[in-house]
Amino acid sequence: MKVDGKDIRTIWLDKDLKVVKVIDQRLLPHEFVIVDLKTVNDVINAIKEMYVRGAPLIGVTGAYGVYLAVLTCPDKTIKDGYLIKECNRLKSARPTAVNLAWAVDKVLSEVLKVNTSLKIDAARKEAARITDEEVENCKKIGEHGLCVIDKISGRKRGDTVNILTHCNAGWLACIEYGTATAPIYAAFEHGMDIHVWVDETRPLNQGARLTAWELGKHGVKHTVVTDNAGGHLMQHGMVDMVIVGADRTTCTGDVANKIGTYLKALAARDNGIPFYVALPSSTFDWILRDGLKEIPIEERDPDEVRYVQGLVQGTTKSVLVSPVGSPAANFAFDVTPARLITGFITERGICKAEEQDINRLFPVH
Amino acid sequence: MKVDGKDIRTIWLDKDLKVVKVIDQRLLPHEFVIVDLKTVNDVINAIKEMYVRGAPLIGVTGAYGVYLAVLTCPDKTIKDGYLIKECNRLKSARPTAVNLAWAVDKVLSEVLKVNTSLKIDAARKEAARITDEEVENCKKIGEHGLCVIDKISGRKRGDTVNILTHCNAGWLACIEYGTATAPIYAAFEHGMDIHVWVDETRPLNQGARLTAWELGKHGVKHTVVTDNAGGHLMQHGMVDMVIVGADRTTCTGDVANKIGTYLKALAARDNGIPFYVALPSSTFDWILRDGLKEIPIEERDPDEVRYVQGLVQGTTKSVLVSPVGSPAANFAFDVTPARLITGFITERGICKAEEQDINRLFPVH
Repeated sequence: MKVDGKDIRTIWLDKDLKVVKVIDQRLLPHEFVIVDLKTVNDVINAIKEMYVRGAPLIGVTGAYGVYLAVLTCPDKTIKDGYLIKECNRLKSARPTAVNLAWAVDKVLSEVLKVNTSLKIDAARKEAARITDEEVENCKKIGEHGLCVIDKISGRKRGDTVNILTHCNAGWLACIEYGTATAPIYAAFEHGMDIHVWVDETRPLNQGARLTAWELGKHGVKHTVVTDNAGGHLMQHGMVDMVIVGADRTTCTGDVANKIGTYLKALAARDNGIPFYVALPSSTFDWILRDGLKEIPIEERDPDEVRYVQGLVQGTTKSVLVSPVGSPAANFAFDVTPARLITGFITERGICKAEEQDINRLFPVH
Repeated sequence: MKVDGKDIRTIWLDKDLKVVKVIDQRLLPHEFVIVDLKTVNDVINAIKEMYVRGAPLIGVTGAYGVYLAVLTCPDKTIKDGYLIKECNRLKSARPTAVNLAWAVDKVLSEVLKVNTSLKIDAARKEAARITDEEVENCKKIGEHGLCVIDKISGRKRGDTVNILTHCNAGWLACIEYGTATAPIYAAFEHGMDIHVWVDETRPLNQGARLTAWELGKHGVKHTVVTDNAGGHLMQHGMVDMVIVGADRTTCTGDVANKIGTYLKALAARDNGIPFYVALPSSTFDWILRDGLKEIPIEERDPDEVRYVQGLVQGTTKSVLVSPVGSPAANFAFDVTPARLITGFITERGICKAEEQDINRLFPVH
């Protein structure tokens, strides 16, 4: 995607094939810094500390983590036991995103198949293949989602289509295009009049910091609102549809996504507004049936709630909002039950958030 | 209420009867500053810039604004036309809170009844009477709300009762006790095991800054959460009831309150959790029947969304969260339809959010 006229992805392998490069997304939108990942620990740290975030990007970063595990293995024989242990460490960096375990296991399985001398190449190729697949999936999500927006635009006779999104399921969460933003970028490229309401998405403000930044860089009209505002906007006809991403989806259609997504789904339902979840099928956890009971919800450092980061006097700093002695809690995700979801926009097309219709698109998994 | 062991209200008249004193609530929780209001313009500024906020406190501040209008009138004859003009300026300081117009008109009406020589005294007495009435109302709201909490506590056999509140309808929004917090303080005084989930309440963080501060000063257990978290907490049985305040209430039971209240009401309904609105009857706008269509929703400066204020290196500063070029919108309130409200906790007791039951408690208005 374009950043100041330059094409860039969120992750790439350096020319010497020894360093994985990522954007340190913690510093956006006020600083744009590229970081080198050279070891498994670097990768775990980048995932845990959220240099990288978003289910697809976490997955791809994990995939390259396996590559680095093979590349930097201290023992020349590259023992299976060592790799499996490193992969387990990688997979535990963030518990909720199913893509991480999925991508790590994919690369690991390719590596375990081949002889020692071929392992480095096998890991790199599989990580690159997963990357390309994610890009292709996002592109297809864009094409399928475009049809939904096009219908709404038709009903509005070309008037501005107002889309609300929560958190960042943009290209910054993926490699290119994004998931929730892919239909938006596709509609924008087709010359439709699109405006995006960007939920700021406390505690880490991925909406205000990241979605607003990437939409702005691309030239898409948008307005930042607090997480509290969406209900009011929907009550007053200012939202035509909601599109969000997903961190983990059950085979029955329950969706774990950034905390607060459930509240927007309730408001959309109460106001008869379509609520779509855009997701590559890598987000499905085919084993789980009850999102509320079965998806583990990560609890993160309460200081993410107590402090807010932003620009002051030219540098990025954190300010303490709540009183010094007040405790805080920081649940990172919530689960939106399938009953509140109008449909899934996947790389294979649109389906209902119902097991049968999901299986129609994905008969083999 | 207690602040560092000292009894204090949110507003009082200085001993010389010429200066109105208020806490500059913009600087809480990190700085505790008392401000002098000496003119109508001071009062308008304090209301507009939110030195004072919360429907009851805005009303009382407006009442003392009329007193200052009389006291500082440049023309010794204190003409009615002048006072009416000053009162209109006061009433337009914030459009949504009905208490402001209500209190200003009450004092004005007393002043207009009497001769010039008695006007100053009449204004001061009526402002003081309104103040005492608000305190008494909050106390009664506490007593009536206590019964609701007591029932829940009984069902839980003395286990911690978890109450979620949005924004600050605490004593800082009133004079003493608060509205939404009055039942909480009452339950606390009765030795019940109470824990409060405090929504931070973006954009101005009145929950994280003010509710957390006043609960902490009083010793009430509490945890600050983002506005996004409430749905998740309710889905997982971590909330026993919701109590919020109100800025304006229709005679049919629709409630305008801080933006985001509606989302919590939806989540409470979806999870079968009681959702109460605590309000003095001064919050009723007896003329309005349709909250969504008829209550004007104030739009405030978008910079309140773009910036967040907090403590950094010992001083209170604002940091810019969103990208420099991204626009923001700032709707200050939303309307929770009566159908989502379990009941009103008023100074006269509990009633349903229905015209008939409201009229049972308030037959004359």
